[in-house]
Amino acid sequence: MTTPVVPSRGALRPLGLNEVRLTGGHWAERQSVNAANTIAHCLHWLETLGWIDNFTRAATGAPFERAGREFSDSEVYKLAEAMAWEIGRTGDPALEARFTELTAIIIAAQEEDGYLNTMFGHPGQRPRYSELEWGHELYCYGHLLQAGVARLRCHGEDDFTRLCRRAADHVCDVFGPGGIERVCGHAEIEVGLAEFARATGEARYLEQARLFIERRGTHTLSAEGFGRAYYQDDVPVRDAEVLRGHAVRALYLASGAVDVAVDTGDDELLDAVRRQWDRTLARRTHLTGGMGSRYIDEAFGPDFALPPDRAYSESCAGIAAVMTAWRLMLATGDMGYGDLIERVSWNVLSGATDPDGTTFFYANPLHVRTADATPPPYAVLPHQAAGGQRAPWYDVSCCPTNLARTFAQFAVYLATADESGVQLHQYAPAAIDTVVGGSRFALTMSTAYPDDGVIVIRVDANDGGERTVSLRVPAWAEGATVTGPDGATRPAEAGRTARVTAAFAPGDEIRLQLPVAPRWTVPDPRIDAVRGCAAVERGPVVLCAESIDLPGGADVAELTVDVSVPPLERDGRISVSAQVHARDGGWPYGPATPDEEGKSAEVALIPFHRRANRGPSSMRVWLPAT
Amino acid sequence: MTTPVVPSRGALRPLGLNEVRLTGGHWAERQSVNAANTIAHCLHWLETLGWIDNFTRAATGAPFERAGREFSDSEVYKLAEAMAWEIGRTGDPALEARFTELTAIIIAAQEEDGYLNTMFGHPGQRPRYSELEWGHELYCYGHLLQAGVARLRCHGEDDFTRLCRRAADHVCDVFGPGGIERVCGHAEIEVGLAEFARATGEARYLEQARLFIERRGTHTLSAEGFGRAYYQDDVPVRDAEVLRGHAVRALYLASGAVDVAVDTGDDELLDAVRRQWDRTLARRTHLTGGMGSRYIDEAFGPDFALPPDRAYSESCAGIAAVMTAWRLMLATGDMGYGDLIERVSWNVLSGATDPDGTTFFYANPLHVRTADATPPPYAVLPHQAAGGQRAPWYDVSCCPTNLARTFAQFAVYLATADESGVQLHQYAPAAIDTVVGGSRFALTMSTAYPDDGVIVIRVDANDGGERTVSLRVPAWAEGATVTGPDGATRPAEAGRTARVTAAFAPGDEIRLQLPVAPRWTVPDPRIDAVRGCAAVERGPVVLCAESIDLPGGADVAELTVDVSVPPLERDGRISVSAQVHARDGGWPYGPATPDEEGKSAEVALIPFHRRANRGPSSMRVWLPAT
Repeated sequence: MTTPVVPSRGALRPLGLNEVRLTGGHWAERQSVNAANTIAHCLHWLETLGWIDNFTRAATGAPFERAGREFSDSEVYKLAEAMAWEIGRTGDPALEARFTELTAIIIAAQEEDGYLNTMFGHPGQRPRYSELEWGHELYCYGHLLQAGVARLRCHGEDDFTRLCRRAADHVCDVFGPGGIERVCGHAEIEVGLAEFARATGEARYLEQARLFIERRGTHTLSAEGFGRAYYQDDVPVRDAEVLRGHAVRALYLASGAVDVAVDTGDDELLDAVRRQWDRTLARRTHLTGGMGSRYIDEAFGPDFALPPDRAYSESCAGIAAVMTAWRLMLATGDMGYGDLIERVSWNVLSGATDPDGTTFFYANPLHVRTADATPPPYAVLPHQAAGGQRAPWYDVSCCPTNLARTFAQFAVYLATADESGVQLHQYAPAAIDTVVGGSRFALTMSTAYPDDGVIVIRVDANDGGERTVSLRVPAWAEGATVTGPDGATRPAEAGRTARVTAAFAPGDEIRLQLPVAPRWTVPDPRIDAVRGCAAVERGPVVLCAESIDLPGGADVAELTVDVSVPPLERDGRISVSAQVHARDGGWPYGPATPDEEGKSAEVALIPFHRRANRGPSSMRVWLPAT
Repeated sequence: MTTPVVPSRGALRPLGLNEVRLTGGHWAERQSVNAANTIAHCLHWLETLGWIDNFTRAATGAPFERAGREFSDSEVYKLAEAMAWEIGRTGDPALEARFTELTAIIIAAQEEDGYLNTMFGHPGQRPRYSELEWGHELYCYGHLLQAGVARLRCHGEDDFTRLCRRAADHVCDVFGPGGIERVCGHAEIEVGLAEFARATGEARYLEQARLFIERRGTHTLSAEGFGRAYYQDDVPVRDAEVLRGHAVRALYLASGAVDVAVDTGDDELLDAVRRQWDRTLARRTHLTGGMGSRYIDEAFGPDFALPPDRAYSESCAGIAAVMTAWRLMLATGDMGYGDLIERVSWNVLSGATDPDGTTFFYANPLHVRTADATPPPYAVLPHQAAGGQRAPWYDVSCCPTNLARTFAQFAVYLATADESGVQLHQYAPAAIDTVVGGSRFALTMSTAYPDDGVIVIRVDANDGGERTVSLRVPAWAEGATVTGPDGATRPAEAGRTARVTAAFAPGDEIRLQLPVAPRWTVPDPRIDAVRGCAAVERGPVVLCAESIDLPGGADVAELTVDVSVPPLERDGRISVSAQVHARDGGWPYGPATPDEEGKSAEVALIPFHRRANRGPSSMRVWLPAT
């Protein structure tokens, strides 16, 4: 069972990497670039910077000068997870050899009692667990355990999974009742323990995850620094109304809380996360699906504080949002959660790397005012690569390895199953081959989506029994239609699930038609930062203007657009009617005067996820309306 | 001569605290609250936190655990400066006694060679000048020398000024040609040395200031961290086009550059600062006159990045902007610089403290979305007190002592003189008594400005010769008039200087009438963050809405205003026609739909500088237009 998330109960059954395969198109390309380039790139940097060597040096027992930040161990674990899924998907023997080498290096650094961290507890270092707020020790275990899950599911028990078990046992020993009854400053151990419990069948790990979830919000962490909301220790998970504080922390915590709620039958807790999620989407999410508005603490802002130029929208927060949405969908069966997964995947994750998969955005703002002349060779701070160009690595380099593990397992987000059939959540060329009602049920999905709105699902295998194929119709898809194997076409309501039930025979086809013509989108009037602006979306893809496409060296700051004219699409090129204004002036505040007429121009837009691929450019998603 | 800034040349002659006295009204009130409360409050915190005791402990020569951040010495110096001006203004003997005590404490910590800093060079501490980027050693000297200037000008040579001379000599010895040819990460030594050169007549100090100005921008500081622009080490001062990086650093540097330019006859340098200033006002200044848009590095953002909710607009940046504008005005004689001084004074400095002068804002955003329930008892980070309520002290507590020294010398910003007469820059009840053309020339200014627009200037003494009284007519004052002693009223053009020339006799009156009716102000369309909004100003005072004034517990987020209806003023209460919208909804982006009708309301506005005085409230200056 090569499945990343396997709840003990829930409306939908997730499929494994052996049951869903990407066969072409954008996501298959991302996945193969990840396998060919990104994993090796990450490994190179982890080796070059000494973040892997930390394990070797910690193992000596002698004092050593440790490389990297307090969470650098976790990068090694996230890369191990990426490798494990990739091995599960492809069986690549070279990667398997590297994984085995890495396992030996990590094992050597594990203490007798299961403790494993290169930053604490060694000669000259601070004692273990002496700094739960910022030490990231439990956070690192969480990622280790997620790698352990990948290894268990794709390979089975081995030295790596046994090391994970020892670490998990150690965490339960030390942080169980009567032990250190506190939490980690960065949530992640919860989701790691919960899935590791599922993968091993060890109820103890789930119970420990539950304890961590329950403790969070009871003020076991200091209020110093950014305050307790930063690490969600302000309010218990089940009492909170909205996601807040550090966005990645909040979303990893939410993911872990869903896992615990599902596996312990705690519907109150599940409802709490759903409530927080709904409010977060309605009030604290950027058009791209990105989350986080605060550079100073990488955090959610208050409701409707969504500045495009300071959209932090961390790549890792996008990944964590997909994790949460996926778990909520499996638990509830509500396919609407797939809308956010699609939005984030196209507009945050996909553009977080360049086409070659070797440079990365950490923050993904929707507006770049000033283009950096040269790409950063290495970015100390995330915002140093927010100037329009990606960096190959960061001091806080959480995003590259996180993207690597996510692309490696991406196929599983496409489909689920239940007793009646298969649900299709994301549309891409893919082969689905699973078991429904005890019999094989196989489908082939063919599509050029989202370039084209037609998705054809062909049934390859069915036992002749009645099956239901459920199709997510995105909320933006007004006018969608679905055609069954009988040839009858009917409307498919936007924001609902379209179901086609039939005693499918091999060769039967279902055709979903989604209206992907480019469209103007306007923001809720409460979003102050983009008042008076509009954006163009095409299907799930958010578009943007880059200065490189503007006439006469104009900057995106000089544009206004005419939203009364629909965006034009011709030969795959999208453009909008705009004016370019050459403005000047002194003190910028005064009595209202009519805005001067600009120079008319037809301005090309490109997908936001393809930004920053053609050299320095200013860029904006939200375009001021004339 | 009790004058803070005395350039060796320039168009206008500054007056001393003995020549301009505030006699009533808002600024006299701020000054007396400062004297009665703020200085004592700061002294209390400096003593309580051990920031004064650092000097005593450093003096022992034994290792000690130092209190406070790396710049805490400067707080003691800024308070000493406040005390010195205050002693100069009032001769308060109790304050004089405290000053003498403080002098003894500081002197004890000074090394043989003049070095003085409690953070470096003592047993167990890092070596002197080993960390110019962040160590703030030269920054601290700069504030020491500014205190020395105050003492020299208000009292004359004493132990304190001699200690300052030793420190200044030390700086010249160590950082002169052939020494450490670098600069401090925080500009301030430049402005301190330049004025200390004027006060002492020591040309060496001016030359050292010049060297620091010339070195800045030549990459003598590391690019690590926030990059070189943060401390203006990216580009030489004379080559830069705009103020950038950390706002206080940028403005202290600009002030020092003007001083050096003026005293060395370097017009190219002066023009460079003027050019940077003009562009900064046109593109990087908030409506309040506040500067800085970045919480993460307390810095200017790029052009037109002026988010009201994240307006950092540090109180100290406001003070530094007044310092720069004042120096530019003295140098050029252009009274228009007074507009920014007025705007900043009313809208940043005045509201940075509560009416009692014992709690402070560090950041002064123009929009508070979420009101803190309780005021912070002590704020570790500036943004912790950005939630609508002031804090009594900060970990980085630069603003309270900076405000204290500024209010103590505030009167001098009201007027200057030249050979032909007196220039009035700020309007407040005041007595001006100076010498023009070798004879006494005295004026009394009577006004309830800006509550009322009438300013009456009575001549109290003149030798009968012809004199010119010049009056700044603010750029917003369309329709102003001036009435001479002959009773003739004529228009006074907004944004220009109105001059009244006469052979004044005692009792003659000049009457300036400024139109202070509340008015709608809209932003330049390039300021993305406030597109579609308008603000109300009344004279120089920016107004705001606070939720406490809204009907039925509404929040400022629910308001839209009708800008076609002029703001209404009745019985001193200002209001605007508004709608209150109770909105709800899910995903906040989609096709354009007509905004729902809100509930009509007449909404009261208050001066921004009086915000946060009535308990928790959300607040906004920029109001979305219906």
